[in-house]
Amino acid sequence: MHYPSRLMEQVVEELSKLPTIGKRTAMRLSLHLLKQQPEQAIALSHAIEQFRTGTQYCEQCHNISDTAVCNICANTMRDHSLLCVVEDVRDVMAIENTAQYKGVYHVLNGLVSPMDGIGPDDLTINSLLQKVQNNQVAEVILALNTTVEGETTSFYVFKRLQHFNVKVTTIARGIAHNDALEYTDELTLGKSIANRINYEYVR
Amino acid sequence: MHYPSRLMEQVVEELSKLPTIGKRTAMRLSLHLLKQQPEQAIALSHAIEQFRTGTQYCEQCHNISDTAVCNICANTMRDHSLLCVVEDVRDVMAIENTAQYKGVYHVLNGLVSPMDGIGPDDLTINSLLQKVQNNQVAEVILALNTTVEGETTSFYVFKRLQHFNVKVTTIARGIAHNDALEYTDELTLGKSIANRINYEYVR
Repeated sequence: MHYPSRLMEQVVEELSKLPTIGKRTAMRLSLHLLKQQPEQAIALSHAIEQFRTGTQYCEQCHNISDTAVCNICANTMRDHSLLCVVEDVRDVMAIENTAQYKGVYHVLNGLVSPMDGIGPDDLTINSLLQKVQNNQVAEVILALNTTVEGETTSFYVFKRLQHFNVKVTTIARGIAHNDALEYTDELTLGKSIANRINYEYVR
Repeated sequence: MHYPSRLMEQVVEELSKLPTIGKRTAMRLSLHLLKQQPEQAIALSHAIEQFRTGTQYCEQCHNISDTAVCNICANTMRDHSLLCVVEDVRDVMAIENTAQYKGVYHVLNGLVSPMDGIGPDDLTINSLLQKVQNNQVAEVILALNTTVEGETTSFYVFKRLQHFNVKVTTIARGIAHNDALEYTDELTLGKSIANRINYEYVR
């Protein structure tokens, strides 16, 4: 493809490095920016640069943060002995939105994925073991997705935690509320029967 | 939604102002940037800012350009009496890719669209009329899409050009090469019969 402008070629090139954005989409986005006020493109440009260079990770939970310790970890009202292990910031936000969880988090910032060359040492698992070793934690809740990478990571973390005196749980899997049994996939339905719980314990 | 970081909120906010990019996609894109080297995010940021502030429009055809006159208009080998009217730079690139066209272009940089508050004066139509009035043009080829806005703009330009001694043509519409008749929509098939051409003229 021959671009009429080197600047356009550059911006299309850089935008199309982003996942799910191809050359055509990148071109549509760049033409959109050209029709807006220059201030909007400059605001976008600055936001990207500041985000990438200014974002820190909380030194306790490793979540994205603007400060050395994030708001959740700094909150003394939360139960610091209850630790929920998640993949990334999106899962923290999803769980926080439920307003049902009063413990703190441990963000792995990824999952074990040999295909992508990501091993346990690339994640924050050692820092998790450290916290448990220091007897700061009573219960670790594994809240990773049930993908191959998620299951592998859960199992790895569980195996490492077995050496310590800590309760390890995982979030409940089953049929979502308001979902009909007849439309549920066999795996979920089968597991929801195998992992049935005492009715009196249901909250 | 409560973001753990103001910088993240900002970048998600700015990215989701782009068309077809929602908050969730913006978040995925920003987390991707965070996993890459800072240089990549900085390159993207600079490309966006330079593109928006540095891009010029060719003073002859109004196409996007890095220089005052674009390469196509500056090329003396091209037929400057043949003018192809297109919506934007993407159409110029598409026609250039065919290597079938030796004339020059006139880029409207939009279409007449009352719904979006875009009238003829917001486009480069007056500059087109000026060129025709100065007897620089022998033939104007209308190459706009057959959307409501495209048809409206074609008709408007045609009406304005009628006052001048200039040939006005439009690109051929019909069944695409290698398309089967039985799967062609009625509108295209009907028009391709109504607008049939002498076999001996087919190139």
